[in-house]
Amino acid sequence: MEKRARVLIDCKDAKGLVYNISKVFYDRGLNIDNNREFVDKEHKRFFMRTIVSGIFDIEELLAELHAITPKEAHIRVIEPKDKKIVLMVTKESHALGDILIRHADGELGAKIECVIGNHNTLRELVERFDIPFFHVPAEGLSREKHEAKVMECIDRYSFDYIVLAKYMRILTSTFVKVYDQKIINIHHSFLPAFIGANPYKQAYERGVKIIGATAHYVTNDLDEGPIIAQDVIPVNHRLSWKDMQRAGRDGEKIVLSRALALVLHDRVFVNGNKTVIF
Amino acid sequence: MEKRARVLIDCKDAKGLVYNISKVFYDRGLNIDNNREFVDKEHKRFFMRTIVSGIFDIEELLAELHAITPKEAHIRVIEPKDKKIVLMVTKESHALGDILIRHADGELGAKIECVIGNHNTLRELVERFDIPFFHVPAEGLSREKHEAKVMECIDRYSFDYIVLAKYMRILTSTFVKVYDQKIINIHHSFLPAFIGANPYKQAYERGVKIIGATAHYVTNDLDEGPIIAQDVIPVNHRLSWKDMQRAGRDGEKIVLSRALALVLHDRVFVNGNKTVIF
Amino acid sequence: MEKRARVLIDCKDAKGLVYNISKVFYDRGLNIDNNREFVDKEHKRFFMRTIVSGIFDIEELLAELHAITPKEAHIRVIEPKDKKIVLMVTKESHALGDILIRHADGELGAKIECVIGNHNTLRELVERFDIPFFHVPAEGLSREKHEAKVMECIDRYSFDYIVLAKYMRILTSTFVKVYDQKIINIHHSFLPAFIGANPYKQAYERGVKIIGATAHYVTNDLDEGPIIAQDVIPVNHRLSWKDMQRAGRDGEKIVLSRALALVLHDRVFVNGNKTVIF
Amino acid sequence: MEKRARVLIDCKDAKGLVYNISKVFYDRGLNIDNNREFVDKEHKRFFMRTIVSGIFDIEELLAELHAITPKEAHIRVIEPKDKKIVLMVTKESHALGDILIRHADGELGAKIECVIGNHNTLRELVERFDIPFFHVPAEGLSREKHEAKVMECIDRYSFDYIVLAKYMRILTSTFVKVYDQKIINIHHSFLPAFIGANPYKQAYERGVKIIGATAHYVTNDLDEGPIIAQDVIPVNHRLSWKDMQRAGRDGEKIVLSRALALVLHDRVFVNGNKTVIF
Repeated sequence: MEKRARVLIDCKDAKGLVYNISKVFYDRGLNIDNNREFVDKEHKRFFMRTIVSGIFDIEELLAELHAITPKEAHIRVIEPKDKKIVLMVTKESHALGDILIRHADGELGAKIECVIGNHNTLRELVERFDIPFFHVPAEGLSREKHEAKVMECIDRYSFDYIVLAKYMRILTSTFVKVYDQKIINIHHSFLPAFIGANPYKQAYERGVKIIGATAHYVTNDLDEGPIIAQDVIPVNHRLSWKDMQRAGRDGEKIVLSRALALVLHDRVFVNGNKTVIF
Repeated sequence: MEKRARVLIDCKDAKGLVYNISKVFYDRGLNIDNNREFVDKEHKRFFMRTIVSGIFDIEELLAELHAITPKEAHIRVIEPKDKKIVLMVTKESHALGDILIRHADGELGAKIECVIGNHNTLRELVERFDIPFFHVPAEGLSREKHEAKVMECIDRYSFDYIVLAKYMRILTSTFVKVYDQKIINIHHSFLPAFIGANPYKQAYERGVKIIGATAHYVTNDLDEGPIIAQDVIPVNHRLSWKDMQRAGRDGEKIVLSRALALVLHDRVFVNGNKTVIF
Repeated sequence: MEKRARVLIDCKDAKGLVYNISKVFYDRGLNIDNNREFVDKEHKRFFMRTIVSGIFDIEELLAELHAITPKEAHIRVIEPKDKKIVLMVTKESHALGDILIRHADGELGAKIECVIGNHNTLRELVERFDIPFFHVPAEGLSREKHEAKVMECIDRYSFDYIVLAKYMRILTSTFVKVYDQKIINIHHSFLPAFIGANPYKQAYERGVKIIGATAHYVTNDLDEGPIIAQDVIPVNHRLSWKDMQRAGRDGEKIVLSRALALVLHDRVFVNGNKTVIF
Repeated sequence: MEKRARVLIDCKDAKGLVYNISKVFYDRGLNIDNNREFVDKEHKRFFMRTIVSGIFDIEELLAELHAITPKEAHIRVIEPKDKKIVLMVTKESHALGDILIRHADGELGAKIECVIGNHNTLRELVERFDIPFFHVPAEGLSREKHEAKVMECIDRYSFDYIVLAKYMRILTSTFVKVYDQKIINIHHSFLPAFIGANPYKQAYERGVKIIGATAHYVTNDLDEGPIIAQDVIPVNHRLSWKDMQRAGRDGEKIVLSRALALVLHDRVFVNGNKTVIF
């Protein structure tokens, strides 16, 4: 039966890769519905995302592609279907709300399995959408203990990504390692400006004329992971830092949702501390 | 001897195009330094721009590529080198000036052969850069007569593109036909809003909150040719239309220069009344 | 008792207006917390928005301000409090959803009295937030008859504004006249480009490189009312018109919410077919 | 004889300032053509920029305004006329070129007295415009010695501002102190991101999706002075840092020219380490 898949290849650059890969598709009679490539010349690394359609067996296709690419090649053949995500939040509703609306509309491209809050503030909003909300308070717990409770909670679900929709706590490197390249965060500044706490206050005090938001993968280094999407909003001297925070929320939610859409459609490759986005 | 070329292919879509084209490059031992493709599904049209390097003869490569692509395929193999352009201007200096500075800096990617003005206003500026300026006044002449004089002037030069850097006269369809897909214009609005004369006044009167500029190929229909680049500038109620005009100039010159860079680097395909830009 | 109010003055320009108005505030011992003025020189019209605080009686203040301004002056003294709105929708959830989330969060600056849908599609979403939803189908009814039913529905509520959150029907001039300067619409294009139906398809077919959204007051002329806010999103040849529609939704909802915030905080003056925004 | 002036007032906030100041204008029969105010609530500081026209003596008006404002008030009454500037450059022509074109066009709002280069690269370009160029090489000189030579050079001119149009050397605090609030710089990043050397390389290595440019007053702390204007340009993984540098140049020159226009029209107040811009 005819099907459609995203073929994602990420390997050392080598002569003839495009030819050899397209030969595999051609020999099997597959259609190429869309094709994007990129070579990182500095690190001699090749990235390719192809949408193919036709009659094929995924395991066989994978085997053939591995046969003609460098040994360490990272190859995925993915049939488009909704991924599964869990959300982590604190008190602010805008980023969560934007995702909930898209979810309710069927536009998100993912099923939300559950929402974890370190506060209980957003329970009502989440439950309006008949999605499980778990309050995992951090008070009186070490960071490790708190995260153990979070993991207990989310590991009951199978999921592809953890989305930090304004989750205001720092994660330990242990937690981050467990969910490597699976955690997406929205930082409320135009990184790397204003790393750390209260970036709007920092922005206000520096007197910038533009503020921003950054969606990125979470790695060990706080606010240092590969950037997926950024956007900016003009501001001026009339805005207090609270005004900037308010104005910035629109940017945050849009950037997070845009980054999430890219990730959920398998359009993002992590390339060291950067991303390649097709 | 090793060389580098841009291979541009534009043809009816067909199965195996990527495979067959990359096979030609592979069989000849050419490196693919960069590759972009696009299929216009609506019109079933395939576009590809590949940078190849290696040892090859351009005529032979062209012949091989024609052998494996549909008959009507439009194929170009272009060695990167500065193109030649002529500029047409009226009285405003900003778009012209931006191009002159890039030209003086060696950054333009083109040699300016000459500048034609229907007024003499910009002679001094052009001659500061030791570039020929020709004043071809239109007063008392029919449109056809005036254009005949312009053509007499520019046809002494060989050139790849005519750049209308705020040339404020409408060209006849005869003129446009002679230089088909060779005339680039900057229109001082966010097309298709405010087609025609004095778009800033129109924008002011409509009370828009954003103004724009559009660089496009010139075709028979005024302000209707394929769009290459656009940009916008926020405005507010405080600006008079003269203020908008002043503010808009920065957008105009940047958009024109950006479009010109795309065209001069053979990054733009015309696709009906649209463009494909790699 | 100390209170705070927005003083909005809109009148023919005259010498000494700032002096005379600030004298009223000064003589009453009021603090000026914020002050913005604008003179439309073309139409010789004066606009002022001042936030005052102190002890005062609204009627008395109004009387004193009328005494020192031109007869036709339009003066309002408004105590900041949530306004009331009704929403009209069709099938798309994004603009509605954005407003519902802000409403649930207490961030909207308005109470939503009810939502009217000419389809029933969005009932579930609205009722999740415990807000009345009324399905007023238009099938088989004349425009006038349908609007009569809508009016019957909304006139049970007192409200300040009607927000068309992707309401896909054209309103009659009768309806518009009844709610003069009270209807806010989001149009899914960068007006005045692509007036009318399916602007994304028009934008796709024109091959623009930027799409936009426009929030405006509704007046008799379709898509011709005073513009409150606009924003744009870059696009390219890879996007189908459905992709543009999807991409454009983020712009639409943000522009509508931004315009709504301006209106609800009494920051917008209508000035003929334009707006003055403080 | 009727004249026009910009009245700029910057003082501690106090009750009745708007009333008292507008009373001065009113009593003298002056027209207010434009008026902007701002109160920095955090620092209790009042800023006002008013365009007045009528018959008045500047010294008398100043005296009256001082009489009704706090003692430490900084008050200026400035008749609009071209200011004088000197430019300092290194090797890159884009920011300089943009200013030269505006100057040649009469659009700059300033007379360029001379250009200082620590390299000789840009002499030809500057001399094309009949503007004095001085090569003040830094090789083999201490920073102090070099700056002494620069000062010797520029102090032959009277000027209002020094514009660093991509001057790639750090100035000593001594130099900065001499020309306090008179030095405008363009930094090739979205400050405070990527302070210091080679911000495009830093941006490339961080993998940001947006780059920027910042025009600011120069103070003692490198890249830390009050920001006047900022702008951004989207980038992606395809750009090398050289590509980013190239793309960034358009932003740099536009931001510098925009900031310069604001400063030259007396629209910028320095407020601690920030600016208030009308």
